[in-house]
Amino acid sequence: MTVTRNTKNVPYYQLGFGAFASLEGMVDARRSPESPGALFYVDHFFRGDGGCTLPLPVRGDDLVVFVNTEREPTVENIDLLSGEAEVFFGERLPCCVTGIGGGSVLDTAKAVANLLTNPGRAEDYQGWELVRHPAVYKIGVPTIAGTGAECSRTCVLTNHKRGLKLGMNSDFTVYDQILLDPELTRSVPRDQFFFTGVDTFMHCFESLRGSYRNVIVDRLSETAVDLCREVFLGRGDMQSDDKLEKMMVASYIGGMAAGNTGAVHPISAALSTVLHLPHGKANCYALSVLGDIYPEEHALFMEMKAENGIDLPPGICRYLPDERCEALYRASIIHEKPLTNALGPDYKTILNRDRLIALFRAM
Amino acid sequence: MTVTRNTKNVPYYQLGFGAFASLEGMVDARRSPESPGALFYVDHFFRGDGGCTLPLPVRGDDLVVFVNTEREPTVENIDLLSGEAEVFFGERLPCCVTGIGGGSVLDTAKAVANLLTNPGRAEDYQGWELVRHPAVYKIGVPTIAGTGAECSRTCVLTNHKRGLKLGMNSDFTVYDQILLDPELTRSVPRDQFFFTGVDTFMHCFESLRGSYRNVIVDRLSETAVDLCREVFLGRGDMQSDDKLEKMMVASYIGGMAAGNTGAVHPISAALSTVLHLPHGKANCYALSVLGDIYPEEHALFMEMKAENGIDLPPGICRYLPDERCEALYRASIIHEKPLTNALGPDYKTILNRDRLIALFRAM
Repeated sequence: MTVTRNTKNVPYYQLGFGAFASLEGMVDARRSPESPGALFYVDHFFRGDGGCTLPLPVRGDDLVVFVNTEREPTVENIDLLSGEAEVFFGERLPCCVTGIGGGSVLDTAKAVANLLTNPGRAEDYQGWELVRHPAVYKIGVPTIAGTGAECSRTCVLTNHKRGLKLGMNSDFTVYDQILLDPELTRSVPRDQFFFTGVDTFMHCFESLRGSYRNVIVDRLSETAVDLCREVFLGRGDMQSDDKLEKMMVASYIGGMAAGNTGAVHPISAALSTVLHLPHGKANCYALSVLGDIYPEEHALFMEMKAENGIDLPPGICRYLPDERCEALYRASIIHEKPLTNALGPDYKTILNRDRLIALFRAM
Repeated sequence: MTVTRNTKNVPYYQLGFGAFASLEGMVDARRSPESPGALFYVDHFFRGDGGCTLPLPVRGDDLVVFVNTEREPTVENIDLLSGEAEVFFGERLPCCVTGIGGGSVLDTAKAVANLLTNPGRAEDYQGWELVRHPAVYKIGVPTIAGTGAECSRTCVLTNHKRGLKLGMNSDFTVYDQILLDPELTRSVPRDQFFFTGVDTFMHCFESLRGSYRNVIVDRLSETAVDLCREVFLGRGDMQSDDKLEKMMVASYIGGMAAGNTGAVHPISAALSTVLHLPHGKANCYALSVLGDIYPEEHALFMEMKAENGIDLPPGICRYLPDERCEALYRASIIHEKPLTNALGPDYKTILNRDRLIALFRAM
């Protein structure tokens, strides 16, 4: 029974099919003579011949940047993007930064908004409580549900130089406003919908199975897990209207829980850092070999995967050279906090090099 | 599948036994040379011989006001309190307003914080979206759980002149920070703990049984109802440590749901307006005669009441003069929105004068 840290909620949300139409009013309410222009980061998925395929509320002073999400955001990329925005807006700041996309785009917008009001480079702020000044006002519009990036106080950035994925963990990173329109997730390819959706299931059950807990986080995590079960195991297609909405709410409530992760996320992070696997898919590979640690959730996940006809081709690490397996081991084991949460202080004994490398080989 | 209104969450919360110790840091962080003094409203329950029995972080420039909670807050009382604060702080504003108590005190602090930055009198702001300017920064510390006042965007005020209870419904009314310390609720008398706690159960099930719904509100309401069942029907005393914490979280999550009420609250409001019954107890009388409309929840409530040895003496309206029953009828039936939510547009036919008066007589 300890006291939680002072926890920040996303201050404003709006939910519903068609909620995207509210974006214009939200952006316009931020415009002022000092900061007339708005900055938009949009998933390249919405890049059409004539510009954006979504009805963006763009005006003359605005900058729209399409973000390539084939790779997850890197610190170098954030530096380039914030430099580009600084050149575009000159002496002024944008009136707001809107991120429209999946976790990568939402995190990109958060990171740039921090950098626009804080000097230096993205990697200077990778860690905890390093951001000094409030970011530019941010609006988050998820177009795929599950990451929880619309709620979280971090923005995960890959730093290849330091061989790690680490976010700018700060209350300033939290979106000021989020817009949850399930309609935007209708066109997400099935595999991606599944891999991203189960991210909510993963981080919520990891929190519930961990040792760092509190009643608010537990109850919100349970609620999000229930919603994921309904989406992936309930009657009807996982992309039917009511499930699109449930999945978006699962991501929001799971993100608001913001519990601590466990053994899945460190292994997943290693797969992303070393093999560039996208986060959601990497989680699935990680859990697929963690039946010993999470028997119940492993079984549930295998059922969800089968039920929705999702393929996870085996053997991705089987023939990797030893030094890459060593790199995977190192990139997993550095995640001290989630591993301690899942396995206790002796996590290095429980999940030793041999066992961990065997797990990667078995994927 | 409609779009929700843009919904405000409480931006910051901290939870845990002992969280009250954080209040000093939170108040001090707001102090400035322009606004050195803080304003505290504290339930008179905590008035001791030498001042407040809680360790309040008071400094020389501060004003501490004990609030008598025998009667629920009235518009006249709010005018007096805000006048007193204006005289005390002179040209300056307090750096923050902290409310420490149950729903009445939390609502008092919210109402005064609005009036300090908005001209006129409390009754000018009874209604929806009437508050024009952001309130003084507010910290809410519930010392009894269940009202949801720590989360809500209203502060219920009785206006005897207009014969109604109506709040200042505004995003500006929402607390900026809440501090959830279950330890503070340990000394609450059993009856009061029960009557206030079941308020969460009531407003959450009313929302779930209503027609104005959305997935976020539903899931949070269900979570809060589950917690209430555990507190009032689970093993162990309702004021054991784990239940004190669960009840505080139920109130928070139920308050965050902020669904629409149904048939209980209008009848309860009439009992409070006409007979001055406190809100929680009035809810209980209301539900006690609504078995026809809410059979399942009525049975559950009767079980909770019996399980915890709570007495609800019958006959409170049996011998009331007819004109007072007429007043109860009128004070119920004006609550159009909750009654429509519960019973549809024909609510006046379903709950006609004769039936409603018979319900009051049966209490």
